[in-house]
Amino acid sequence: MSDIQQTALVVSAHSADFVWRAGGAIAKHVKQGWRVKIVCLSFGERGESAKLWKQQGMTLGRVKAARQEEAQQAADILGGEVEFWDIGDYPMRVNDEILFRMVDIYRELQPSFVLSHSVKDPYNFDHPLAMHLAQEALVTAQAMGHNPGQKIIGAPPVYAFEPHQTEQCEWIPNTFLDITDVWETKRRAIECMAGQEHLWHYYTRVAQQRGVQAKRNIGIASKRDIEYAEGYMRLAPSVVDTL
Amino acid sequence: MSDIQQTALVVSAHSADFVWRAGGAIAKHVKQGWRVKIVCLSFGERGESAKLWKQQGMTLGRVKAARQEEAQQAADILGGEVEFWDIGDYPMRVNDEILFRMVDIYRELQPSFVLSHSVKDPYNFDHPLAMHLAQEALVTAQAMGHNPGQKIIGAPPVYAFEPHQTEQCEWIPNTFLDITDVWETKRRAIECMAGQEHLWHYYTRVAQQRGVQAKRNIGIASKRDIEYAEGYMRLAPSVVDTL
Amino acid sequence: MSDIQQTALVVSAHSADFVWRAGGAIAKHVKQGWRVKIVCLSFGERGESAKLWKQQGMTLGRVKAARQEEAQQAADILGGEVEFWDIGDYPMRVNDEILFRMVDIYRELQPSFVLSHSVKDPYNFDHPLAMHLAQEALVTAQAMGHNPGQKIIGAPPVYAFEPHQTEQCEWIPNTFLDITDVWETKRRAIECMAGQEHLWHYYTRVAQQRGVQAKRNIGIASKRDIEYAEGYMRLAPSVVDTL
Amino acid sequence: MSDIQQTALVVSAHSADFVWRAGGAIAKHVKQGWRVKIVCLSFGERGESAKLWKQQGMTLGRVKAARQEEAQQAADILGGEVEFWDIGDYPMRVNDEILFRMVDIYRELQPSFVLSHSVKDPYNFDHPLAMHLAQEALVTAQAMGHNPGQKIIGAPPVYAFEPHQTEQCEWIPNTFLDITDVWETKRRAIECMAGQEHLWHYYTRVAQQRGVQAKRNIGIASKRDIEYAEGYMRLAPSVVDTL
Amino acid sequence: MSDIQQTALVVSAHSADFVWRAGGAIAKHVKQGWRVKIVCLSFGERGESAKLWKQQGMTLGRVKAARQEEAQQAADILGGEVEFWDIGDYPMRVNDEILFRMVDIYRELQPSFVLSHSVKDPYNFDHPLAMHLAQEALVTAQAMGHNPGQKIIGAPPVYAFEPHQTEQCEWIPNTFLDITDVWETKRRAIECMAGQEHLWHYYTRVAQQRGVQAKRNIGIASKRDIEYAEGYMRLAPSVVDTL
Amino acid sequence: MSDIQQTALVVSAHSADFVWRAGGAIAKHVKQGWRVKIVCLSFGERGESAKLWKQQGMTLGRVKAARQEEAQQAADILGGEVEFWDIGDYPMRVNDEILFRMVDIYRELQPSFVLSHSVKDPYNFDHPLAMHLAQEALVTAQAMGHNPGQKIIGAPPVYAFEPHQTEQCEWIPNTFLDITDVWETKRRAIECMAGQEHLWHYYTRVAQQRGVQAKRNIGIASKRDIEYAEGYMRLAPSVVDTL
Repeated sequence: MSDIQQTALVVSAHSADFVWRAGGAIAKHVKQGWRVKIVCLSFGERGESAKLWKQQGMTLGRVKAARQEEAQQAADILGGEVEFWDIGDYPMRVNDEILFRMVDIYRELQPSFVLSHSVKDPYNFDHPLAMHLAQEALVTAQAMGHNPGQKIIGAPPVYAFEPHQTEQCEWIPNTFLDITDVWETKRRAIECMAGQEHLWHYYTRVAQQRGVQAKRNIGIASKRDIEYAEGYMRLAPSVVDTL
Repeated sequence: MSDIQQTALVVSAHSADFVWRAGGAIAKHVKQGWRVKIVCLSFGERGESAKLWKQQGMTLGRVKAARQEEAQQAADILGGEVEFWDIGDYPMRVNDEILFRMVDIYRELQPSFVLSHSVKDPYNFDHPLAMHLAQEALVTAQAMGHNPGQKIIGAPPVYAFEPHQTEQCEWIPNTFLDITDVWETKRRAIECMAGQEHLWHYYTRVAQQRGVQAKRNIGIASKRDIEYAEGYMRLAPSVVDTL
Repeated sequence: MSDIQQTALVVSAHSADFVWRAGGAIAKHVKQGWRVKIVCLSFGERGESAKLWKQQGMTLGRVKAARQEEAQQAADILGGEVEFWDIGDYPMRVNDEILFRMVDIYRELQPSFVLSHSVKDPYNFDHPLAMHLAQEALVTAQAMGHNPGQKIIGAPPVYAFEPHQTEQCEWIPNTFLDITDVWETKRRAIECMAGQEHLWHYYTRVAQQRGVQAKRNIGIASKRDIEYAEGYMRLAPSVVDTL
Repeated sequence: MSDIQQTALVVSAHSADFVWRAGGAIAKHVKQGWRVKIVCLSFGERGESAKLWKQQGMTLGRVKAARQEEAQQAADILGGEVEFWDIGDYPMRVNDEILFRMVDIYRELQPSFVLSHSVKDPYNFDHPLAMHLAQEALVTAQAMGHNPGQKIIGAPPVYAFEPHQTEQCEWIPNTFLDITDVWETKRRAIECMAGQEHLWHYYTRVAQQRGVQAKRNIGIASKRDIEYAEGYMRLAPSVVDTL
Repeated sequence: MSDIQQTALVVSAHSADFVWRAGGAIAKHVKQGWRVKIVCLSFGERGESAKLWKQQGMTLGRVKAARQEEAQQAADILGGEVEFWDIGDYPMRVNDEILFRMVDIYRELQPSFVLSHSVKDPYNFDHPLAMHLAQEALVTAQAMGHNPGQKIIGAPPVYAFEPHQTEQCEWIPNTFLDITDVWETKRRAIECMAGQEHLWHYYTRVAQQRGVQAKRNIGIASKRDIEYAEGYMRLAPSVVDTL
Repeated sequence: MSDIQQTALVVSAHSADFVWRAGGAIAKHVKQGWRVKIVCLSFGERGESAKLWKQQGMTLGRVKAARQEEAQQAADILGGEVEFWDIGDYPMRVNDEILFRMVDIYRELQPSFVLSHSVKDPYNFDHPLAMHLAQEALVTAQAMGHNPGQKIIGAPPVYAFEPHQTEQCEWIPNTFLDITDVWETKRRAIECMAGQEHLWHYYTRVAQQRGVQAKRNIGIASKRDIEYAEGYMRLAPSVVDTL
């Protein structure tokens, strides 16, 4: 892996999801020299912009612009590259053109891991759809007969980041990422989301709770200190040389 | 972790289980300089020694002796330290004296990981009981008020090694250990089990199948070659710095 | 909640489903002064009208008309308002136009709860699709940016009513509605389904079995008598002030 | 239900569990006039008293006394009656004498609901054992032939309160209790646990997160405000007259 | 299999369970020439004899005698051989002596299949215990080193018969036994249970519902008529020559 | 069933799937006089033809032709009739025209059982789609109002054949088909797949492992010998006269 820059892909249904749910992972890997690409499928313009809609004279275009600006700022702080695909939300719809565009991203980026939403979420159908797109594009990008001549990809692990109500989504974390050393960065990115201040506190507490649990899983006796963590559900087995 | 020798614990219900199911892990970590301790709770004298019992004039004592000799040879080849507790099989029963003896092992050994059977096995009740003992002893060894003054342990991950009929046991591998480089050693250990030659072939095929699957999970495109692997089900989340 | 009439929504894949599966709930809430709206997505004209199709010279149009008439009668007896959307069955297909029509219903009705089919049913793919429509429309109706200016809805609980083979559908009742006091009404509604007399008896027995189970769950010692009940699987947590 | 005082039972494995996990429910029902009885099976003296054990010259007796004092203070603040059974922890063991003692509690108390631990907890085997005791005692207390002549009980619902790592315990909340109005009381009870100050913050955050989720489940549009909540997993169906 | 009489084993926690849950299977196989042995572990004297306990001056001895008489009559009608082990109920407890007694039954009987309770039942802990005994005894009876010299058994399939609230018990029927031709016999056996007349009707309806479902699973178009059936959950795979 | 030839249907996503996964079932039933129809939805031209794509100047057309030829040879050896629908792979897409074409197959063939892929497969989305098509077509073929006048079908059982990584696919075999007597035929069919020689060995080992497990499920003591087997997951209950 030596001199080649490692890369990762984040597929975010709405423009703020990558901040709340994977901001620590983005910042942490960027800090380690990785290139992290973020695809925001929509701006969350219909379903996750309540505060903006309460302003008088608000239009879809203005909501999108405001949301894009916030998300761009957050991505800049985290150090990730962000693309906005503007495919619509509530309901989100994906066709093969969008799928193949994502396949191209995979083949160009050759990511070492992929982050997206939980496979199930009864409160939000855009989220599982984004994950399904991430998974189906991965499988297609592995197929030698899809756009033959392009470089196919390997089998990067796909992780589901944390949904809002984990237990209702059958989401079980099997991996905790220690984000203590990038927490300040994540918090600054979070604070770009001007219209959702109540969520700043909510996701700060999520990071604290996962920090305590991560600590619990290495043992209270361990000297290592973890204050903030992000939980992930890895969907496929890992291959290791040491248990 | 530097100069201190890493250690691991294997809790095996019957005397051959550690060979079929974790022989690769034992050999691999020993090769990396680890100390690996194996506790055989029983010899499998009643339930897994059919061939011996078919010999005329066979007695329980002779079955146990023969099984112990085979298992000791296998452990020697793998490089693990083995203890035989002779608590009986089919049915296996565990009391608090046995539990506390296992707790002592944990505290003395301070293992970095623990291997035992699947949590469920409708074909064999000794197996889940061995795992339960491994888990309950770990929890007790973490309790500061149990034999206060002794050094408590951290939170080593517990892995369930592969049962015979995985799908019936709700056993889902989330970790593949590449054992290609120690396969010959494992195979030699397997061949110590004189009375179960049909299982030599069965578990060789298991290792091959898991090797193909491990390869699949790093991607066919990967240059790394894996011929033999062991599957493990890690029961608690891992804590990482890179996804 | 005082003076405002409470409302509920029932989404029925085929025209008789709401009778067998939710007739008691409809009658019971109507009796309590509620307005209950029923949307029949199809007439069950292809897949659930066997007896009609056995008549000579039967046409799709005549089947639909007969089924609509029965369902209208049943709805009248139960006291519910029924709409027939005629989107076809076996297979049922839903597009965004239908979705948005359902969203409009939610926003106009502002239901306090929603009833539809089980999330899974390997014997019938129209049923889970109807539930999915009910759920996706609810989520869309909550999105402030969908048709801004309309009144959005809260978070009414969605309940899955009882499928035919519960255990094959992963349907687990967590709520029993006592329908003893409206049973006669439900039975009269059931008897409108002229072509499915065998189901009259089947669903009468279902109501009796659920009645016995409801009684079991309040305790045999309880003075309250329950003879007939309907089982429901509530899909999201309830919020309470007393346990 | 008129003039008879309602009652509830809380079965707590260790002496602080009822505070972190059910303190709000206790305070809330006491405030509504209920009698709430708490059984602490152990003091958590071995496994949950690390800070005490770090003091020099500490003995099991002194740990127990300190833990009892804290728990008694917390129970007094919450308004619950507490009994300490001192059956030992890490590992906890239950025999029929203890079971029948719990059956007597059920029959005397005639509780309207019961709270205990999650049915599964791979980090702590005392917790599921306490729940199992609560369930088996309930079933026995319903049996007319157990101590005939005593008054048998009905079928009070059993709820599992929140474990430490919910997703690893297959614990899924289906009921949120709004504890906003008794939060200050619960917090004061929490602060009795002098040796576990880090948990004060942890469980305060738990209450805040569940508060946000409870609010989410009644709908953001609702006028009702919820700041703090406790999550519960009800294990058996409820019987209702309105959905 | 020719001339040797086929045999089956039914392990019933309480004395009436075999009638409600497996009476059809017993009668049907007896009619086909099988020997069916029933072991009633208890009389259900404490937990399932409410009506008897309401009589004045009732004693445990009299309850047991009455229950035994009913069960013996029912077994006679069905054609099964019944043994009463009187090990107590609510709570039921099993030790190794009881286990080995059951192992002896297996080895003597050499059953072609085994019927017992569901593996899980949150309403009744005696039921899963009876099934566990049936399973552990089977595994022990297969162990050549248990009482060497005795004839070991093969691997007869174990089926869980229908519990009271199937969905709460994670019981999913994968096998329907058509009992239409022995229904009258089962009904007569049911009517021996003088004190539980309400259950006569309940289990008659169960048989009718399962009959309808069995018919559904062979296809409405099938000419075969099924009026009554029993549902079973087979716990291990079957081995076949035709799918 | 007498004189009428029994029939079966196999729905294969890619042109080699039916060979690896169901070749034994096809050969075995053909040997028993059955007519077995295989529908290959695609040739696996994009996703499962890596070796062909590595040849210079390869085109989609040439890949398809090569794959068809291999599959045709394999089908001929097994004795099945094969149709190639060429609907594309990676990603596979199904519309109503394809659904109705499959319905026509069902109604013409009147199969006694149906084989297709696992319901879930996170490594391959074509596979579950093929199964969904098989299931939805079956349900539609049962609907009297679909193309009234045609002969509807009964309720043939649907079996999921073995996916590549069973545990990741929630695939649990409940039926083992003994294919020892047709193994040589299956192996010859396998060898038609010139470009996937590594899979010859993989699926030979699969057959051997399932053979050992099938043997384990009838009992080691059984005289019947099984060397090769195929595992199937039957999705709906069976209806029987003997357990």
